[in-house]
Amino acid sequence: MAEATAIAQQFTEYYYSTFDTNRSGLQPLYRETSVLTWEGAAIQGGKAIVDKLVSLPFTSVQHRVSTQDAQPVGDMLVIAVTGQLLIDGEQNPQFFTQTFVLRRDDAGFYVQNDFFRLVYG
Amino acid sequence: MAEATAIAQQFTEYYYSTFDTNRSGLQPLYRETSVLTWEGAAIQGGKAIVDKLVSLPFTSVQHRVSTQDAQPVGDMLVIAVTGQLLIDGEQNPQFFTQTFVLRRDDAGFYVQNDFFRLVYG
Repeated sequence: MAEATAIAQQFTEYYYSTFDTNRSGLQPLYRETSVLTWEGAAIQGGKAIVDKLVSLPFTSVQHRVSTQDAQPVGDMLVIAVTGQLLIDGEQNPQFFTQTFVLRRDDAGFYVQNDFFRLVYG
Repeated sequence: MAEATAIAQQFTEYYYSTFDTNRSGLQPLYRETSVLTWEGAAIQGGKAIVDKLVSLPFTSVQHRVSTQDAQPVGDMLVIAVTGQLLIDGEQNPQFFTQTFVLRRDDAGFYVQNDFFRLVYG
């Protein structure tokens, strides 16, 4: 579990810092078989997923991770994240939750499954 | 994906209605290998998990599911839930997120992995 936690922390730091500085740089983290359920809509394939993320209608975004929990599942790693989003310099954060299922191939860990939801308070 | 969504809906309805009426009735949904990460603490095994849930310090609770997203992952099913909790008749809900990894055995679907977090607004 300690290794899972360490990998999860490294992954989420990389993922959100890339998201916040260069969304198109996320494409190497997805594969053709990857699926993102984004606010209830399923999107398949790394290119389509990153096209969606790049098209989101804000200029700047900052993710602040509040909690991340990781468990190994067979040869996969499941990471459940909660956090806050600051969009275009707004002072009031939005809350989000995201779940990643990571798999590993020759290039390292990639996102096989991804679930994103805003949480409305 | 339609089948995944149908199973997920059936599962979460059963899970939360059982949680809200008879927490100890959840034990058949877990196995000895099951792991729950509850507010960051890992608990392994169906008995330990249900003991934890039964020991939570409230008399009555009502889960209201806001969103649930499901994806098949190999022979598993991952379900990401967001929702509201009403505890002991309080008017102000607390927000939560829960992720389930379901597997199937001869007895049907069971929870292999479970992640629960309150989301503080």
